[in-house]
Amino acid sequence: MNKGTALIIGVGDGLSASLARKLSDEGYDLILAAREPHKISELAAELSASSHSCDASIPAQVDRLFEAVTGPLRVMIYNPSARVRGPLTDLNPEDVHKAIDVTAFGAFLTGQQAARRMQDQEFVNGKRGTILFTGASAGVKGFPQSASFAMGKFAQRGLAQSMSRELHPKGIHVAWINIDGGIRNQSRSERTDPPENPDSMLDPDSIAETYLHLINQGRTAWSEEIAVRPWVERF
Amino acid sequence: MNKGTALIIGVGDGLSASLARKLSDEGYDLILAAREPHKISELAAELSASSHSCDASIPAQVDRLFEAVTGPLRVMIYNPSARVRGPLTDLNPEDVHKAIDVTAFGAFLTGQQAARRMQDQEFVNGKRGTILFTGASAGVKGFPQSASFAMGKFAQRGLAQSMSRELHPKGIHVAWINIDGGIRNQSRSERTDPPENPDSMLDPDSIAETYLHLINQGRTAWSEEIAVRPWVERF
Amino acid sequence: MNKGTALIIGVGDGLSASLARKLSDEGYDLILAAREPHKISELAAELSASSHSCDASIPAQVDRLFEAVTGPLRVMIYNPSARVRGPLTDLNPEDVHKAIDVTAFGAFLTGQQAARRMQDQEFVNGKRGTILFTGASAGVKGFPQSASFAMGKFAQRGLAQSMSRELHPKGIHVAWINIDGGIRNQSRSERTDPPENPDSMLDPDSIAETYLHLINQGRTAWSEEIAVRPWVERF
Amino acid sequence: MNKGTALIIGVGDGLSASLARKLSDEGYDLILAAREPHKISELAAELSASSHSCDASIPAQVDRLFEAVTGPLRVMIYNPSARVRGPLTDLNPEDVHKAIDVTAFGAFLTGQQAARRMQDQEFVNGKRGTILFTGASAGVKGFPQSASFAMGKFAQRGLAQSMSRELHPKGIHVAWINIDGGIRNQSRSERTDPPENPDSMLDPDSIAETYLHLINQGRTAWSEEIAVRPWVERF
Repeated sequence: MNKGTALIIGVGDGLSASLARKLSDEGYDLILAAREPHKISELAAELSASSHSCDASIPAQVDRLFEAVTGPLRVMIYNPSARVRGPLTDLNPEDVHKAIDVTAFGAFLTGQQAARRMQDQEFVNGKRGTILFTGASAGVKGFPQSASFAMGKFAQRGLAQSMSRELHPKGIHVAWINIDGGIRNQSRSERTDPPENPDSMLDPDSIAETYLHLINQGRTAWSEEIAVRPWVERF
Repeated sequence: MNKGTALIIGVGDGLSASLARKLSDEGYDLILAAREPHKISELAAELSASSHSCDASIPAQVDRLFEAVTGPLRVMIYNPSARVRGPLTDLNPEDVHKAIDVTAFGAFLTGQQAARRMQDQEFVNGKRGTILFTGASAGVKGFPQSASFAMGKFAQRGLAQSMSRELHPKGIHVAWINIDGGIRNQSRSERTDPPENPDSMLDPDSIAETYLHLINQGRTAWSEEIAVRPWVERF
Repeated sequence: MNKGTALIIGVGDGLSASLARKLSDEGYDLILAAREPHKISELAAELSASSHSCDASIPAQVDRLFEAVTGPLRVMIYNPSARVRGPLTDLNPEDVHKAIDVTAFGAFLTGQQAARRMQDQEFVNGKRGTILFTGASAGVKGFPQSASFAMGKFAQRGLAQSMSRELHPKGIHVAWINIDGGIRNQSRSERTDPPENPDSMLDPDSIAETYLHLINQGRTAWSEEIAVRPWVERF
Repeated sequence: MNKGTALIIGVGDGLSASLARKLSDEGYDLILAAREPHKISELAAELSASSHSCDASIPAQVDRLFEAVTGPLRVMIYNPSARVRGPLTDLNPEDVHKAIDVTAFGAFLTGQQAARRMQDQEFVNGKRGTILFTGASAGVKGFPQSASFAMGKFAQRGLAQSMSRELHPKGIHVAWINIDGGIRNQSRSERTDPPENPDSMLDPDSIAETYLHLINQGRTAWSEEIAVRPWVERF
């Protein structure tokens, strides 16, 4: 059964591919967007998805991306983030500004466009649509030598909270997912988890199960925020 | 396929019955415990479950309950809570003490016993077992005229955090679920949601879906805390 | 100028002595209470304070303590806490129960009695009185092998939040102070801070300055929660 | 006694004037910066302070401002914030971007420059300097119809956390103050608090007392975050 369109922004790493395959299996038409479209052409072909080049932190490019979204948009997932590491006093302000733009302003631009589409759609299974933001523990706790990531992820989480309080009563489900740990890269042949400490990195398919659960939650029991982390992760 | 034993403590309201039916459907042998066993006899018969009388805030009764648990304990869910409302200065200290005992100390007693059982079990699908505590927003924010509930639910949440940090690396998954809102009572024939504001109360079956998702999460992506609330709930 | 009575519960360590001396200097009549009164007799003599034996987790003893409080009670500070360390599965339930009683139930009992006294007093400098609870980071984050402390301090923080929301509009200022780190013991002649890492432990006089600031805050700008920690503390 | 330089950015409203007068009284040389310098000329004259025109969200202007800071910089306070209100779907992205720049990116630019100055200064009373950010409850909870303010204040709070964890061990004290409520405007002759609900707005002098307390905290007991709100404020 066709479930409408799912738009995944920031495709390239293991998580996005897992999300795309799972949503395709569930019956969604996929639209994939990335800054570097060659990174998603193979996945798009595999899933018969359309692929788009888009820097989500630039309003005109986001406008153009959403013009390509036809039919009811049921799911939007925002993955991009950027950061510069190092002592606060050494950071290049331009890099910091760009990092905030990618992590937070892009989340706003795409979240706003998705909300515009979704707010006039009919309800299906109690909701008009679902908007998910991929966060990190940097959005809950500001770590040293990581000011730009703290700013971007905190801002993104504040956006998700504001949107969920505003849009839930309109039937649009918004949630922020804290991916607390490193994601295992399935594309490499070698295991990234150390043998003495198996399953110490997040399996993208397991993360995707939680995204799918959020998408399928009944509207009397919506979650707005959730963290996922490996069993051996310290937190 | 038999998945081992699931123990649900504090059965009686709509949530516990939904949890019991869902876990039974999934292949778990059910053990139900309640202070007033007549409240669960019908459900126990329906699910071929054993039922036990137990005040979970009393160590000897908890010991006796767990003696009746044979075979691998895969799931333990703790639901009981108690409170006294009113101005702080009017509260009866004995009632407050009892409320903390039921909400928090009982969670400790049963959580401890469940951990003892689970820690020596073999891993199945990457985990030894799952312990879930039914919380409330009172565990995140202390409301006026509700000191006993704030104390009990905060303590329960602190327990869940301590247990998850200690037991996750041992393969025991612990989570605290904030049920933020009123639960719809399915046993009544009339709808409890007001017609002008449908689905304003939590459907116990929808809540149970999130419990089941937590139980089934892969161990590289465990959640420790989650809130569920109706789409129209203010938070 | 006499400022009325300040009651400090749980006297004995460095913090309580610093608080007592500072409040005495400020013009408060001191009442000191401890489970073991011989620990406070010297300090009481020094400050011309009355001293009382009281296990604050026992209602009758708290009742008796407050019968000894005459005159307007302007400040109440609650310091006692207790814990048992170790793996969750090894903890003695009785010890856990007692720990919660000391840390949280005693805070309730004394907080309730203080509120009863204060709610009918006249306003002085915009407030009827101040109630302060000495917390710990265990009330914000539940650490492994520390279930009883997590439960007690979380419960105490939930109590403080509930009380502040209920009592602030009545003119009674309630706050919870997270002492995040080890307190330096001034009574020992040797320094407890390691020479290579000076000032790594909290100076009780510095903590007391923050307590005094809270007591003196104008009522248009009250704080309900604050953490204090050494400059080199990781958090 | 001269205590070095205090730089206040974002001067104009009642809070900044209270802070400036209090710090001047304490013995600091004041430097005042604002986007519209005519708003601060009178205050600058009153306090013999230097005044500067500066849009703190523009790197070149911040560079120029700090070139004017001579002598040891002991205190830096960042006040500016901006927002656009309205339904998420109606917001102008440019306005949102500018709001984030003023509230959060300007905090980064000035915080970075202040840290550069302070990190090589000698310790006075245990610290090299203090950096304070004026926050709001929007940095703790994202409200509906207020996405831009949620993003800016969350990002600012994440910055403050990252900076405090990085800079505290270097002797630079960083804190974020949540001003939770409306600030009373002393310049108007009429009272802004309703007569039936006195002291319902924050008195800027009372807020300034808490800023001063943070500046004076001993380094074994530094606070990183604090909220101040009127006694009758709901939270």
